[in-house]
Amino acid sequence: MKRKKIVTIGGGTGSFTLLSGLKKYQYDLTAIVTMADDGGSTGKLRDELGVLPPGDIRQCLVALSDSSEELRELMNYRFESGGLEGHNFGNLFLSALEKINGSFSGGIIEAIKILNVNGSVVPVSEDSMRLVIKLNDGRLLSGEKELDENTQIHEIGIHEVRLASRVRANKRAVKAIDEADFIVIGPGDHYGSIVPNLLVSGIKKAIKKTKAKIVFVAPLTNKKGHTEGFTVLDYVKNIETLIGSGRIDFVVYNSKKPHRDMITKYEKQEGKKSLVLCKYANDKKYRIVEGDLLRKEKIVTAKGDKLAHTRAFIRHDSDKLARAITLITEYSEYRSFNIL
Amino acid sequence: MKRKKIVTIGGGTGSFTLLSGLKKYQYDLTAIVTMADDGGSTGKLRDELGVLPPGDIRQCLVALSDSSEELRELMNYRFESGGLEGHNFGNLFLSALEKINGSFSGGIIEAIKILNVNGSVVPVSEDSMRLVIKLNDGRLLSGEKELDENTQIHEIGIHEVRLASRVRANKRAVKAIDEADFIVIGPGDHYGSIVPNLLVSGIKKAIKKTKAKIVFVAPLTNKKGHTEGFTVLDYVKNIETLIGSGRIDFVVYNSKKPHRDMITKYEKQEGKKSLVLCKYANDKKYRIVEGDLLRKEKIVTAKGDKLAHTRAFIRHDSDKLARAITLITEYSEYRSFNIL
Repeated sequence: MKRKKIVTIGGGTGSFTLLSGLKKYQYDLTAIVTMADDGGSTGKLRDELGVLPPGDIRQCLVALSDSSEELRELMNYRFESGGLEGHNFGNLFLSALEKINGSFSGGIIEAIKILNVNGSVVPVSEDSMRLVIKLNDGRLLSGEKELDENTQIHEIGIHEVRLASRVRANKRAVKAIDEADFIVIGPGDHYGSIVPNLLVSGIKKAIKKTKAKIVFVAPLTNKKGHTEGFTVLDYVKNIETLIGSGRIDFVVYNSKKPHRDMITKYEKQEGKKSLVLCKYANDKKYRIVEGDLLRKEKIVTAKGDKLAHTRAFIRHDSDKLARAITLITEYSEYRSFNIL
Repeated sequence: MKRKKIVTIGGGTGSFTLLSGLKKYQYDLTAIVTMADDGGSTGKLRDELGVLPPGDIRQCLVALSDSSEELRELMNYRFESGGLEGHNFGNLFLSALEKINGSFSGGIIEAIKILNVNGSVVPVSEDSMRLVIKLNDGRLLSGEKELDENTQIHEIGIHEVRLASRVRANKRAVKAIDEADFIVIGPGDHYGSIVPNLLVSGIKKAIKKTKAKIVFVAPLTNKKGHTEGFTVLDYVKNIETLIGSGRIDFVVYNSKKPHRDMITKYEKQEGKKSLVLCKYANDKKYRIVEGDLLRKEKIVTAKGDKLAHTRAFIRHDSDKLARAITLITEYSEYRSFNIL
């Protein structure tokens, strides 16, 4: 039987979670990954070595890797002290491979061999991408890292995110979208991981044209000043301003409430309505999968990852997420699924 | 047929060359490697991360690796700019594995799996080793890197090299020496790579006790202030002050003259008699293998290795060296071999 072709679009932890789940099924997987990251270890490498941002690519490679647990742990290892502090080993690995091969894509092809990756991992563009963030007061911020670091965003709010200059879509990404059976957008940080991919005009065009079914996976939580108070429908509408109204076929979202303590913690950080609201099932335009998509276990992070304990802990469960997607790919004739 | 057990003792490029040649034969190989390096990328990692020195180990792992050429090239890749400048990727790889595994030896075991290494690579000690260099005027220098960097050595000369404090021999190294059929000491930088191994008293003892035949491979060139004007016999005697008089069974040395231009270049740098003299064949105490052991081709270095062009270019050829050793292991009943 021909394997169904799934293309995921995103970056970071969201794609890692989704791909970790999907790889257990017999899909032909291609991960299209944002290249807009310019903070942290990745940002330093971009600045100092002139490489393309390795961080999001690394997470997708590790998710799809069939190599040993040790090698995968190594790829996520973060140095804790000295001149290497904060650098992620896997990022250094990809940067060195880019240098040796003379191109980022050549480096990824090597990495795919070394890490025994089952699937394709494709940067959305091979040009250097920079985000410009327009705030509600008209001010412009430059660089993706501002999204995380600039606290003015919390008060003023984001009006729009765009690219500093036009970049060419990666031809392999366009081809994958063209040939896909299903395209899964998300989950992931809205302006940091999802939108940058859809700002690349060649990608937008390809999504408008493809015969693939398009699935959107809504995030679990909103971010203060970014998507404050968003409902699932708000996310869908926002994405459709980029890829065309009515273009999304399926919407997947979590309808299980996290533990109260967790909600309190998030509300302190991200404001009231920090959970993405699910007033959604009534909209008849989209076919939906709703249910418990929450990760239960405490999140195990790579050793030496100091940032880990400061990170969000409401996360998707990769197996539940993959089951939700599989429901769609196997039973796409059904209108909606409630798997709670 | 039982494979013959060969233990090599050394570090750096010398061990890399020897092992690269020997691995093409059916030997059971164990590389015992100095842990005294504290310069360059390795020195920085020792200081900043508190790890054991990875550089010499890395070279032996790469030499014995059966993985792809690309992965081996990656391990030797040196970053050229920014905060990572001068760091060798393979060194970062070993340091990260040491951190993740909680011990250097545990890290090496992982590395052996990942790099598909055929043989054992064993640090001479798992304690932190520091060299003390006593000059001829009685002054003391601290640290192996002084051997390369302190130009006073050129004028004053080295009286003796010792360890700053007693370190314990690695039990696995002692066991390998104990069970070996042949032990090959060298080639390598005399005070930088060879002597430090033999200063570890547990290693000395093991070499005195073992039934293995002991082979010494003389270096090709002398170093100013280190071993200025040494003949092959001077090296042998110097080694035997450490492991016991008459302990060496076979001496392997090059008797082919390099190109005149090369000699001129070396004499400018290392003084007259910069080549190791071969007035040696007459000494009846040792069985000898002499011949052309020189590498002919231009040395291909890892991309991005800025130091490469400043390095010595009179080098052993790994295949010729391995053939010389094989002559000994296969025909050890012969008294001497002239393979010129």
